Amino acid sequence: MNDQTHSIRLFIATPLKENDRVFLTPRQSHYLLNVMRLSVGQSFLIFNGEDGEFLAQISEIQKRIVHLTIKKQTHPQPKTTTLNLLFAPLKGERLGFLVEKATELGVSDFIPIFTKHTVPSYINLERIEARAIEAVEQCERLGIPNVHESMSLEDMLEKWSPSEALFFCEERAADALPLWEALKKEPRGCSFLVGPEGGFSVEEKELLKSKSFVKPVSLGAQILRSETAAIMSLCLFMASTQKGA
Amino acid sequence: MNDQTHSIRLFIATPLKENDRVFLTPRQSHYLLNVMRLSVGQSFLIFNGEDGEFLAQISEIQKRIVHLTIKKQTHPQPKTTTLNLLFAPLKGERLGFLVEKATELGVSDFIPIFTKHTVPSYINLERIEARAIEAVEQCERLGIPNVHESMSLEDMLEKWSPSEALFFCEERAADALPLWEALKKEPRGCSFLVGPEGGFSVEEKELLKSKSFVKPVSLGAQILRSETAAIMSLCLFMASTQKGA
Repeated sequence: MNDQTHSIRLFIATPLKENDRVFLTPRQSHYLLNVMRLSVGQSFLIFNGEDGEFLAQISEIQKRIVHLTIKKQTHPQPKTTTLNLLFAPLKGERLGFLVEKATELGVSDFIPIFTKHTVPSYINLERIEARAIEAVEQCERLGIPNVHESMSLEDMLEKWSPSEALFFCEERAADALPLWEALKKEPRGCSFLVGPEGGFSVEEKELLKSKSFVKPVSLGAQILRSETAAIMSLCLFMASTQKGA
Repeated sequence: MNDQTHSIRLFIATPLKENDRVFLTPRQSHYLLNVMRLSVGQSFLIFNGEDGEFLAQISEIQKRIVHLTIKKQTHPQPKTTTLNLLFAPLKGERLGFLVEKATELGVSDFIPIFTKHTVPSYINLERIEARAIEAVEQCERLGIPNVHESMSLEDMLEKWSPSEALFFCEERAADALPLWEALKKEPRGCSFLVGPEGGFSVEEKELLKSKSFVKPVSLGAQILRSETAAIMSLCLFMASTQKGA
């Protein structure tokens, strides 16, 4: 019998150190015991987004709560690349999907921005965080993205550090620099701003272009939905960081 | 009152020619009359994937069926770039999502491939086609992607024209060429093969690598879900066709 079920990776919101003991939440305990059918002695991977990834062994089950002993570290915590996604909240599953894919593609910070044409008037930050953690658990990533409080486009532009470039993914922008070109000049971190389904208003576009740190970039001639534009930006950033790019 | 509602674009499965008359399906008629609240005299866009895009005017409503008069052509039919996506069917909404995004990103042909670790045992081609048409209607694309009959990986490799490169998007393939590099050599059409959630089996990988037309490519070190890998491949292809790439 194989006692190591390495395809399981759980996020645990406590400090992690070899030989320490931790216990799981009722939901996680239920998942391990009733869905995955693990028992005392079996091992799997845990991480907390700060201390790296560890092998952990089920040492005890008390009142349906799983207690773990932390064994050896399997991966140190990697240094995080700053990759900010500033996005207008979308309706329903499109938002969940955007968060999942952006997490897989390495976003470090989700920054919801309300614009004139944004349809939802409210964004549930806890749901976004939960979806991001789920994606991190599945894609072998170790860092948990930060989910920031939402703000208006105007407030964001006011607070933005002018020394940091903000790529503004513009629709139908034939004269904007292709993103791939722009990325050659930004090898380290990156920030992308993607608008709502209805696009930015004329006034918002003028405001954006009045800021020297806002760099309009083009994703090509085709029309992409908001979440697709965000994903494409992140894919190109990721590819640009690959060797040989 | 504005009589042209240009944000509406409907796919119509009949030949289209200026001054001809066509009528809509009950579902489309219901959408226009009851959801969008259009009436006689109003115009919108139609296309059929072959003859280009036209402005059409509602000339009559008979027994809740909308009759149209085709006015002037608004866009000629563009030449299609071959962009084949060979993919293992995924479960549930992941498949629908893959089809939607791949359509936005220009896939010309969907080719479902059954592999050893493919979870669904059946794929509903009509649902894929419907989802692709819906995406085409929304993203201003004019061509309708072809949805092919599914086949096994072995059959596909047997039938594949050896003169055409097939990019095999490999997971954890540190030695494979980064896709971006590989794309520089394939400026025209392209074919991508993406595996199921569980990946290809060892035997399947060996079979793939035994074929000279199969080109293993890497999407980077991170772990991506199947649909994300497919989308990333298409995003990079699309960016590679942009001016300045």
